Amino acid sequence: MGNNQIPLAVIGTVAIDEVETPFGKRDRAFGGSASYFSYAASFFTPVSLVAIIGSDFPSGFRQILEERPIDLTHLESALGKTFFWRGKYQFDMNTAETLETQLNALHDFNPQLHFRKNPDFLFLANIDPTLQLRVLDQAGKPKAKFVACDTMNFWIEKKRTELQHVLARVDAIVVNDGEARQLAEEVSLIRSAQKIHSMGPSKVIIKKGEHGALLFDEGRFFALPAYPLETVFDPTGAGDSFAGAMMGYLAKTGNTEFDNLKKAIAYGAVVASFTVEDFSLDRLRRLDLKQIEERLAIFRKICSF
Amino acid sequence: MGNNQIPLAVIGTVAIDEVETPFGKRDRAFGGSASYFSYAASFFTPVSLVAIIGSDFPSGFRQILEERPIDLTHLESALGKTFFWRGKYQFDMNTAETLETQLNALHDFNPQLHFRKNPDFLFLANIDPTLQLRVLDQAGKPKAKFVACDTMNFWIEKKRTELQHVLARVDAIVVNDGEARQLAEEVSLIRSAQKIHSMGPSKVIIKKGEHGALLFDEGRFFALPAYPLETVFDPTGAGDSFAGAMMGYLAKTGNTEFDNLKKAIAYGAVVASFTVEDFSLDRLRRLDLKQIEERLAIFRKICSF
Repeated sequence: MGNNQIPLAVIGTVAIDEVETPFGKRDRAFGGSASYFSYAASFFTPVSLVAIIGSDFPSGFRQILEERPIDLTHLESALGKTFFWRGKYQFDMNTAETLETQLNALHDFNPQLHFRKNPDFLFLANIDPTLQLRVLDQAGKPKAKFVACDTMNFWIEKKRTELQHVLARVDAIVVNDGEARQLAEEVSLIRSAQKIHSMGPSKVIIKKGEHGALLFDEGRFFALPAYPLETVFDPTGAGDSFAGAMMGYLAKTGNTEFDNLKKAIAYGAVVASFTVEDFSLDRLRRLDLKQIEERLAIFRKICSF
Repeated sequence: MGNNQIPLAVIGTVAIDEVETPFGKRDRAFGGSASYFSYAASFFTPVSLVAIIGSDFPSGFRQILEERPIDLTHLESALGKTFFWRGKYQFDMNTAETLETQLNALHDFNPQLHFRKNPDFLFLANIDPTLQLRVLDQAGKPKAKFVACDTMNFWIEKKRTELQHVLARVDAIVVNDGEARQLAEEVSLIRSAQKIHSMGPSKVIIKKGEHGALLFDEGRFFALPAYPLETVFDPTGAGDSFAGAMMGYLAKTGNTEFDNLKKAIAYGAVVASFTVEDFSLDRLRRLDLKQIEERLAIFRKICSF
């Protein structure tokens, strides 16, 4: 795929995960924030994946990405091992317990972007803010029209200064409720959103797991419950899929107005609801746009009164 | 007011509360499940209040009820003190910590109903299931057309058998998420609702505080976020106001079909959002139907995509 017409790029991790949930265990699962993001986005638009893998990265995993309109020009290969994450979910499936993180190939990651045409939409998935800043320098605004980011508790604690620099340069942030509270140092989510807004992003999107999502967009407000699932099999990647589908839909429509952003968030919630129905990318690999549209229609009914 | 045209009755507590929140303390606040319920319902329909008070009950509190279309024919007065509840909210305003409960006059409560015409809608607010059963015997189905109940952790633990008898005889239950999980002995709210449905009520309404509410109605599903509030001042009575407005709207319209129930639940969420803006019934006393309709219109926008 030539990358001159790719409207969306993501930087983040491509990982090998070891995941345990109350429903089972998967030893070498395909994971990583950018993997979930780009797979979810690819239902809506071609997407360019900026990430690094090690020499142990299974060719089967690469093929999974190649099945989709995911541009791998910026998927670097390094010597050594791929980024590894080991985590566990207890019965409260809202929070992962990280048991082990090996940065491996990520240590040497210094992305050099050479887009023929800079993507209009850029997502900085959960990764070291130092790397997010390097990508912003090369492909952020004004080259990109719309930039959003994610982050996590680890970076909020360890690299708050770098993270603040990132926040000052993005249009939107997509974080979960715990991260929002930690970042803002506030209990109330509404006040957290206002405080994060004052750090830079005009749009603050807060994911609340089984309780849905909130959007704060310069005084305008949108609240969405979660799509109801009887069983959440493996929550890994739910947030990244949410962001991927959301950004994919925005990039496809080229419209970041409030009303379209609400719809993008609904798509995000729907695709995330599929992700958690199976381990790794397994459910997304059995997914198509028709199923997404069907569930969105049900979702719309569920929320309307 | 003659009670021959009153379409809704509630049994529950009328209480004197002592409440502490992070925002302040109120020593002798007007409270009780039936007080909040009937005040909230009265914006939509006349309501008959079945409860007991002690001789210490301030005449000023009685006047608060008399300002509204609340029939007090079944508000009994006993010697001794009014039911007393002392509670505290920490920064997590979702859960009250009960510091003290004095049943007082409630010890001797044995409601004798003498409606000229039995109300079509009956609500069994949070109170001893033994009392709920006595009211069901006198005014439940088939005399009433639609009966709903609430309960709490204390009764689930101490009087599960009596509570099961209540559940077998109601159309709907309105409980919070913790109570639903405890009652069903399930972690998943969806499975909890299914299990509670199998105990009797065809409609299961689960309140999730700042995360909104869910309705399960024989396979059909409705999810509503909470109305966004920057500050929750005092959560006491939120659930009872929710149920009061919901039942009031149902009784006013005489329609318990799924689509109307969804609307009733939205009214419940809106009235509850006013309740928590001040101590006791203070905000409800400054409320009118116009403000309710305005906030409902905003709420509808907030939820639509």
